Amino acid sequence: MSNISLTSISYNGDGLVPAIIQDVSSSRVLMLGYMNAESLGLTVETGRVVFWSRSRRELWRKGDTSGHIQLVRSVEVDCDSDAILVKVEQVGAACHNGTTSCFDTARIDAQTSLTAEEAS
Amino acid sequence: MSNISLTSISYNGDGLVPAIIQDVSSSRVLMLGYMNAESLGLTVETGRVVFWSRSRRELWRKGDTSGHIQLVRSVEVDCDSDAILVKVEQVGAACHNGTTSCFDTARIDAQTSLTAEEAS
Repeated sequence: MSNISLTSISYNGDGLVPAIIQDVSSSRVLMLGYMNAESLGLTVETGRVVFWSRSRRELWRKGDTSGHIQLVRSVEVDCDSDAILVKVEQVGAACHNGTTSCFDTARIDAQTSLTAEEAS
Repeated sequence: MSNISLTSISYNGDGLVPAIIQDVSSSRVLMLGYMNAESLGLTVETGRVVFWSRSRRELWRKGDTSGHIQLVRSVEVDCDSDAILVKVEQVGAACHNGTTSCFDTARIDAQTSLTAEEAS
């Protein structure tokens, strides 16, 4: 895997890149947040995950209020440089609802038994 | 975890919701794609992952060209209903570059040794 610089990231029209946060120990996907160039820079420089809050329109260092901080363990970039995967050591619950993951509360019923043979 | 309906999803200004695709066996995050209401509906009804291609502006059923299809195993929705986590059985490589994951090619150097004690 090659190292690339912060300036290689493709931000969307709002100047943001989606950041998937994954627990480095359990591999559970914890949440999806958004970063602008400044918050991504702070994330890689300080080792703590910093988002851009789209609702509050401000930098949001995860855990400053709750204590549930996210410690950076790796930052991977996808093939189009327009999505980021941050593996973290999560302190406490990732979700503001108190659950381990923001994906712990709801699911959509789906067809989940299709096999490769049936699909081909 | 409660079941919710397709109509509960919050789409962004472009009518899209980001969908994280995770391998159900390895837990590797494979890619991030986008779905509109139609592609999400097709994904849950057919059991194959269907995205909305932002570049081609058309439905994109993963694997129709490459054979590298994604079979749906669960569809989870986050606490704000504006992001989706789809666990899949991946056939072949998820990335068009031939790698298992779209996050296999590049990383950003970061501070990765911060401890909870140091951060507090």
